[in-house]
Amino acid sequence: MTKMNIPTSSNPRVVIIGGGFGGLSLAKKLKNKDFQVVLLDKHNYHTFQPLLYQVATGGLESGSIAYPIRKVVQNYNDFYFRLAEVERIDTEGKKVIADIGTIYFDYLVIATGSKTNFFGNEEIRKNSMAMKTIPQSLNIRSLVLENFEAALLTNDIKEQEALMNFVIVGAGPTGVELAGAFAEMKKHVLPKDYPDLDIRKMEINLIQGSGKVLDAMSDKSSQKAFEFLRKLGVDIWLNEQVIDYRNNKVSTKSGRTFNTETVIWTAGVMGATIDGFEETIIQRGNRLKVNEFNQVEGFTDIFAIGDVASVITEQTPMGHPMMAQPAIQQGDLLASNLVRIAKNKPLKPFVYNDKGSMATIGRNKAVVDLPKWQFSGVFAWFVWMFIHLISLIGFRNKLVVFWNWVYNYLVFDRQGRLIVRPYKRKNEESFPQNMN
Amino acid sequence: MTKMNIPTSSNPRVVIIGGGFGGLSLAKKLKNKDFQVVLLDKHNYHTFQPLLYQVATGGLESGSIAYPIRKVVQNYNDFYFRLAEVERIDTEGKKVIADIGTIYFDYLVIATGSKTNFFGNEEIRKNSMAMKTIPQSLNIRSLVLENFEAALLTNDIKEQEALMNFVIVGAGPTGVELAGAFAEMKKHVLPKDYPDLDIRKMEINLIQGSGKVLDAMSDKSSQKAFEFLRKLGVDIWLNEQVIDYRNNKVSTKSGRTFNTETVIWTAGVMGATIDGFEETIIQRGNRLKVNEFNQVEGFTDIFAIGDVASVITEQTPMGHPMMAQPAIQQGDLLASNLVRIAKNKPLKPFVYNDKGSMATIGRNKAVVDLPKWQFSGVFAWFVWMFIHLISLIGFRNKLVVFWNWVYNYLVFDRQGRLIVRPYKRKNEESFPQNMN
Repeated sequence: MTKMNIPTSSNPRVVIIGGGFGGLSLAKKLKNKDFQVVLLDKHNYHTFQPLLYQVATGGLESGSIAYPIRKVVQNYNDFYFRLAEVERIDTEGKKVIADIGTIYFDYLVIATGSKTNFFGNEEIRKNSMAMKTIPQSLNIRSLVLENFEAALLTNDIKEQEALMNFVIVGAGPTGVELAGAFAEMKKHVLPKDYPDLDIRKMEINLIQGSGKVLDAMSDKSSQKAFEFLRKLGVDIWLNEQVIDYRNNKVSTKSGRTFNTETVIWTAGVMGATIDGFEETIIQRGNRLKVNEFNQVEGFTDIFAIGDVASVITEQTPMGHPMMAQPAIQQGDLLASNLVRIAKNKPLKPFVYNDKGSMATIGRNKAVVDLPKWQFSGVFAWFVWMFIHLISLIGFRNKLVVFWNWVYNYLVFDRQGRLIVRPYKRKNEESFPQNMN
Repeated sequence: MTKMNIPTSSNPRVVIIGGGFGGLSLAKKLKNKDFQVVLLDKHNYHTFQPLLYQVATGGLESGSIAYPIRKVVQNYNDFYFRLAEVERIDTEGKKVIADIGTIYFDYLVIATGSKTNFFGNEEIRKNSMAMKTIPQSLNIRSLVLENFEAALLTNDIKEQEALMNFVIVGAGPTGVELAGAFAEMKKHVLPKDYPDLDIRKMEINLIQGSGKVLDAMSDKSSQKAFEFLRKLGVDIWLNEQVIDYRNNKVSTKSGRTFNTETVIWTAGVMGATIDGFEETIIQRGNRLKVNEFNQVEGFTDIFAIGDVASVITEQTPMGHPMMAQPAIQQGDLLASNLVRIAKNKPLKPFVYNDKGSMATIGRNKAVVDLPKWQFSGVFAWFVWMFIHLISLIGFRNKLVVFWNWVYNYLVFDRQGRLIVRPYKRKNEESFPQNMN
């Protein structure tokens, strides 16, 4: 196939690459405006990434944090979704080249988000797990359960130790929340599931390069999170840099080693840029340099929003944090700016409205940073749940997630303990290791 | 690994192969009796097979019809579950040889169920989809959605026809329920999801070898089901036998052909027997010949229950139907018979209590055969839903399924439209074709 079969239209065509937080908020705001919108994504669903760790730890089904993109854009006029993987951009010819064909654009918006950054370490990339997508999260879930099944079978102490030792590299929100969830599985679920295994042997090691967990949050919240994790039995290693992982051995800069079959790498993300741009445009963190109107440097009709974009201004020399909020806000603003362009009106610059950040460590344990107020504990935990529930797309998902949380809370359970896609065992259901 | 690490016990050891309806009902009844029970299954979850078709058509998440086996057997004394694939039985040495090792048994119960029967046609097996497991159902879901995404991209009428033509071979309950679910997707979901595609072109062809659908049910119910399916726009081909499927072409005995990229084969099942038995013991349908105590012919300590077993008596020369009920009832009886053996008491023979059968075709459309009463329509549909809900294991699953059904009914939706494991597109998430 070489065509995307998008009908011609009297409206100028906006091609959006990526149906994440940024791309989808833009698409929604462009509903029934005078544009033809073409949304491309390599998945046919939007992923609510903040809850991936709960899919990985069996607390939620993948279906309840994913939402079919086509359902979002039902009844949008002159709107087309295509399941496609973009290969490169032809900025000269104003074309997007994808696996399903080539398409011309009047305006292009790159909202491809970010991917795991292994900092060029091939061994770590090959041997550790990432958690940026639903398939990856389901793989982690399967791997963890398969490890316990295997731990039952071995009398080799060292092997059993490696099977029951879970190393999480990176103590950002993802690493912290995952470590907390593992700790709760260890406490409430695994001892019941594996009575003939000494679950006390299970180790959860959280390794952080800097001197504190939740680096981006307030000292108070970071300190609280540290205490919560310790209380849950997570071993935290600060100022430790992982330099290698092979043959079940994690090595750190300081010379420490960990004997483990499972390393989950949350230590870094990088912009998921697309071929077709000058090197000079690629900023720190592999992000595209854009101005305050999200125009990619050197272009007036090519935009980038969200994690993949770095809005470089005097106030923001490093761009904005790679989180959902900047992406959503940039998507919203870009929609109105595209309308302004069509009307030859001056563009509005992006100003980030920091609504704060939060992380949950476990039941009744969360930390919240609001611009003027930091708090933690039970109330923070309820705030965290409330915010995440209302942020989920779709009434059904909200309700299913809510119900699952109530259930898990009351019975101390996580029922998604199904090895639906065996990760290790070499059988027909096995999965290739590195998936996007 | 060569050991299964099952501790020795003063109790005689019962090894159960398979955690389906039969194996699980047996395991439950053996709870805390004077046996050591070892349950082996190649999945760590029990699958509620009657609802697989709803997973395949996006009506339910896989997690809500599967249940972790370890959760079922929590707090069972002297009970051990092992995730294992059994290779063969050493009836002489009373050993089970599996991929994870070998185990000795005092009593062996084969509850391996059934698998899809392609009647030796290699081309059909290679090119068509089966629907006996959750991974297979998720593959069908992905394939269907991928077909529509692909149909959008082609201008080749013949190719588009093949992509939108769904052929279901076999009009038993599975085939009928699947055809009905596809018809409802065509009516309520797909036109909204694919506005730029003429969904009227979608074909659902149901091919049945015999002269009626739901062959095993009453003429009245079979006739009603036929009418329901026709009303929903399903094309039904009776007395047609599929003899080949290759290069998108289905050929039937009568010379009819269908141009399709999707064939779902529900035309036959066969017992999932295990190596180690004489040919003479293998009955019609590849089932093990057992007596009324479910003892495999020639053995007193090896039993078979459910689909894999054929209880050959004068009253049942062909054994019992391959459905959940006989398996469950045989499992229950065998538990008490094993206790009787331990107490040197005479065994009780199996007498099948036929509770009737039912099938659902679509919203407000179902047929129910009770021993003395057949009925159909809305009431039958509610009965069908009620029976299936109470049969599901676990309060959470019951509630999640119930909620999804209410939601789907009210908003005419099926939200599980996620291509989580792309089936066709050759990327890292792709799946091998034939999975158990």
